[in-house]
Amino acid sequence: MADSIFRVNMSTLSCTVEDVPAAWAGHGGRGLTSTIIAAEVEPTCHPLGEKNKLVLAPGLLSGTVAASSGRLSIGAKSPLTGTIKESNAGGTAAQLLARTGCKALIIEGLPKEDRWYRLLVSQQGVKIEEESELVGKGNFAVVEAHGQRYPGKIGLITIGPAGEMKMAGANISVKDPDGSVRSSGRGGLGAVMGAKRVKFISIDPGDGKVAIAEPEKFKEANRAFSKALVDHPVSQALGQYGTNILINIINESGGLPTKNFTSGQFAGHEKISGETMYDTIVQRQGKPKHNCHPGCVIQCSQVYTDTAGKKITSGFEYESIWAMGADCCVDNLDHIAEADRLMDDIGIDTIETSVAMGVAMEAGVLPFGDGTGVCRILKEEVGNGTPLGRIIGNGAGSVGRAFGVTRVPVVKNQAIPAYDPRAIKGIGITYATSTQGADHTMGYTIATNILKVGGSVDPLTKEGQVELSRNLQIATAAIDSTGMCLFIAFAALDNQECLPALIDLINARYGISLTGDDVVNLGKYILKTERAFNTAAGFTAVDDRLPEFFYSEPLAPHNVVFDFTGEEIDTFWNF
Amino acid sequence: MADSIFRVNMSTLSCTVEDVPAAWAGHGGRGLTSTIIAAEVEPTCHPLGEKNKLVLAPGLLSGTVAASSGRLSIGAKSPLTGTIKESNAGGTAAQLLARTGCKALIIEGLPKEDRWYRLLVSQQGVKIEEESELVGKGNFAVVEAHGQRYPGKIGLITIGPAGEMKMAGANISVKDPDGSVRSSGRGGLGAVMGAKRVKFISIDPGDGKVAIAEPEKFKEANRAFSKALVDHPVSQALGQYGTNILINIINESGGLPTKNFTSGQFAGHEKISGETMYDTIVQRQGKPKHNCHPGCVIQCSQVYTDTAGKKITSGFEYESIWAMGADCCVDNLDHIAEADRLMDDIGIDTIETSVAMGVAMEAGVLPFGDGTGVCRILKEEVGNGTPLGRIIGNGAGSVGRAFGVTRVPVVKNQAIPAYDPRAIKGIGITYATSTQGADHTMGYTIATNILKVGGSVDPLTKEGQVELSRNLQIATAAIDSTGMCLFIAFAALDNQECLPALIDLINARYGISLTGDDVVNLGKYILKTERAFNTAAGFTAVDDRLPEFFYSEPLAPHNVVFDFTGEEIDTFWNF
Repeated sequence: MADSIFRVNMSTLSCTVEDVPAAWAGHGGRGLTSTIIAAEVEPTCHPLGEKNKLVLAPGLLSGTVAASSGRLSIGAKSPLTGTIKESNAGGTAAQLLARTGCKALIIEGLPKEDRWYRLLVSQQGVKIEEESELVGKGNFAVVEAHGQRYPGKIGLITIGPAGEMKMAGANISVKDPDGSVRSSGRGGLGAVMGAKRVKFISIDPGDGKVAIAEPEKFKEANRAFSKALVDHPVSQALGQYGTNILINIINESGGLPTKNFTSGQFAGHEKISGETMYDTIVQRQGKPKHNCHPGCVIQCSQVYTDTAGKKITSGFEYESIWAMGADCCVDNLDHIAEADRLMDDIGIDTIETSVAMGVAMEAGVLPFGDGTGVCRILKEEVGNGTPLGRIIGNGAGSVGRAFGVTRVPVVKNQAIPAYDPRAIKGIGITYATSTQGADHTMGYTIATNILKVGGSVDPLTKEGQVELSRNLQIATAAIDSTGMCLFIAFAALDNQECLPALIDLINARYGISLTGDDVVNLGKYILKTERAFNTAAGFTAVDDRLPEFFYSEPLAPHNVVFDFTGEEIDTFWNF
Repeated sequence: MADSIFRVNMSTLSCTVEDVPAAWAGHGGRGLTSTIIAAEVEPTCHPLGEKNKLVLAPGLLSGTVAASSGRLSIGAKSPLTGTIKESNAGGTAAQLLARTGCKALIIEGLPKEDRWYRLLVSQQGVKIEEESELVGKGNFAVVEAHGQRYPGKIGLITIGPAGEMKMAGANISVKDPDGSVRSSGRGGLGAVMGAKRVKFISIDPGDGKVAIAEPEKFKEANRAFSKALVDHPVSQALGQYGTNILINIINESGGLPTKNFTSGQFAGHEKISGETMYDTIVQRQGKPKHNCHPGCVIQCSQVYTDTAGKKITSGFEYESIWAMGADCCVDNLDHIAEADRLMDDIGIDTIETSVAMGVAMEAGVLPFGDGTGVCRILKEEVGNGTPLGRIIGNGAGSVGRAFGVTRVPVVKNQAIPAYDPRAIKGIGITYATSTQGADHTMGYTIATNILKVGGSVDPLTKEGQVELSRNLQIATAAIDSTGMCLFIAFAALDNQECLPALIDLINARYGISLTGDDVVNLGKYILKTERAFNTAAGFTAVDDRLPEFFYSEPLAPHNVVFDFTGEEIDTFWNF
């Protein structure tokens, strides 16, 4: 079965199945979403208007048995940042979508009538049907109803009320193997799907399979690749404690943004740490280890339960816990878990929304530390789209503008995540220069600045940070094209057998012969393609800067500011 | 008495009186505010942070008896647009400030403590005193209390609750001769004053006078100048009907933006027209003719009363009446007048806020045509800074983002005023290219497109529009430097004696010998200085565009779109 482009036009409510243009053939995941958006979307268009397109693409290895290859890339012009955007998530959709023969699903246009739709994807293409029952429903209700309506291993990609209300913090959620959700969180892609009035996308591959050109070679490469992953100590720590292992580590580094980025350490860090979380889950007979997509060998996810053993949330990530915890000064893990569940149900990015809550706390909307207040606002205001809910649901920048706050941690209007760029300078370069707004996953210098993976670069000095961020951003863009989880990067940075094995996987899948240089060039091509889109959309070097307060307010305990000049930051693009 | 720069530092709560730097000596009004901001304000700074500066400057002729010379320019980096900003208004402050010997008042820094202040300006400089009594009060209460506290002809520049709450639509109001207010409306300058925690500025010139280098020549020039003004038919129409004479004229042209810019004609236009307003005022024994500053010979202002003869509002302008009227489909002039009064009292721009209300109507927040609903929202929500009030108080772009609306008539995030750029194409060029965001006063092509002043350029074709807008924007920048009301432009365009008389006035005031070329070069210098600031702040040609819907949605009755290409628009800057 040859891969095709599935194109859905919501203006005409029609779908075509198209051959893959030659220029797109070598691409998958982020490389493909960004290539398609750069080719077909007017950079200056309104993100919620008819000219924007939502593009969903499995990675180059999605649908195969390659370890940890289940990420789905979703891209569009972002309503939050105004830049090009790719956000990827786990769940089962990437693998199922690849098995339908869909290389990329492009959703374009806007319906003329005030109705909602569902998209049913199969090997035959996409059926567009009117949907009414699930409109207005939260993600968990959608997952449940969808499971009843379409029994079996059927993929689901959906938006919650936030996406329907076109909030700039709205995410797109993907059903995971246990009927929970994983989300393409950043950049408000849920609002683009909501603007197109697609409530959910259902994926039934039937007997579809992904062809492997050289099966033996593939199997062998996968064995070496999996071994490299499971052997790495960071993979192992992630498997035991989840990403939340980082709370104590980052707190110790003095780079844990606390109380809306006014300190680098949080007094309550022990209460919300990965270790505490692990003990709590074990004590409550929850699930400390869990995978977000079939075939993941790292298994950083977990199921967090209440004292009665009932699930509160799963995929309880460090960034979410930091944001609602340290940044909002909430030191009660149950409150944070409840907030996480609410945000997953409403379908809104936990980082953006929690950082927005921190800015709202600074504005006096609610007190710092008020975990129950946070849950009330999420449920009653954000979930119902009240004016306050919309201010918060539109992100941290929105809250700052609404209330006239100047300490607003955003780059290109996207909230800065869980690592303060004053105390961990490499990540500041990533925030500033990323084509996507502030995003730690775009060039995770924490690996080398803090975890000492791939060498060591002192987080407190400027030396080596631009080069570190550049190398990681290039590598990340390439990894994001494979469908691989970014967490393969730890092994790839330290184990010399990992990256060649990954390249062998791609080569065996397609019967080609990529080299390491090809992969680096792919990463560079993606970054430059994305940047060219942003430049045409009106972005300049001035947008590659951190907010003023990072340069003027020293961060305790190191009492450091972010001290890169604009010229120094701009050398990032010298490649 | 030599003119000086009065500099107030709110961080240190101190004031200095400084000599005028040579580079600033020839400037006044907008030329001076923009020169100072370009020299002293970091273009990328946060508009509400300590690095922004608020600059107030009388015009070159302010404080003299020259006709219609009482405009005060206020500038800063705008919290609404992020661009450089100058907004000027009438009232008595410009003349009184000039008489203290203050060439420009610069307010910089931010107070460290959570207190409010008043500034008392005299010939000796500025005293900074703590203010508590009037904090939270509306503009009319401030005017009244200020008059009791400082009796006599004392100037007053104040912000209302909107400025205190740092809303991006907040204006700065200036007391007029009758104890009402005139406002520097556009661009949210009130939020900058609020961020600096200055509630009001009081101006007592004592026996201060403005020196005239050549008094006889000045008197003679003023006679010719005044005559040119009063002789022009547009001046006369403005004197009788006010600016609202335009409702029927623009409706007839098909360029009266109606129902959030979905039509070019308003069925209720007769009910809100200048003619109806004049008849109503006369019938209710209000004041159809009134001047906003001493010495104005045009007198376009008026006092609009209720049926009992009690004043509702004054300075009841076309743009305000259009915005709350046609754009929101409110056809009850009393409701519009009440809304106007509320906005004047809250201290918020009538254009920005009313256009924001139109977008809110499109979002379903309240129905189109609901004049009482508008008044309720202004009073209870905007005036009290509720979440909905802040969404609206932050302008049309804010409402669009909050509710995910795509038909949002803004350029550089500032609301497009009362002339649809599809049916009156010249003004579209002004909206797109103005250094200040969408602003009709920056290059009022309506004069030539519709009123046939200064020639005639067909509003419906592209020919000649860029050149028309360019010439008018250059001339306007120069006029805005003199302290003259922009309405002198009608006479200046048609009467060959007007502009030379104005230049003679300046020459006689300072004992210099400017030529017409000097004035044109001044205008060009101002535009280029402002544009350089914006470029350094991150603006590009992409920002010099109208919103997407103007290109794709034909406007009735002419069924026209805005059809200038980006390249055509960009030729504006070829000078």
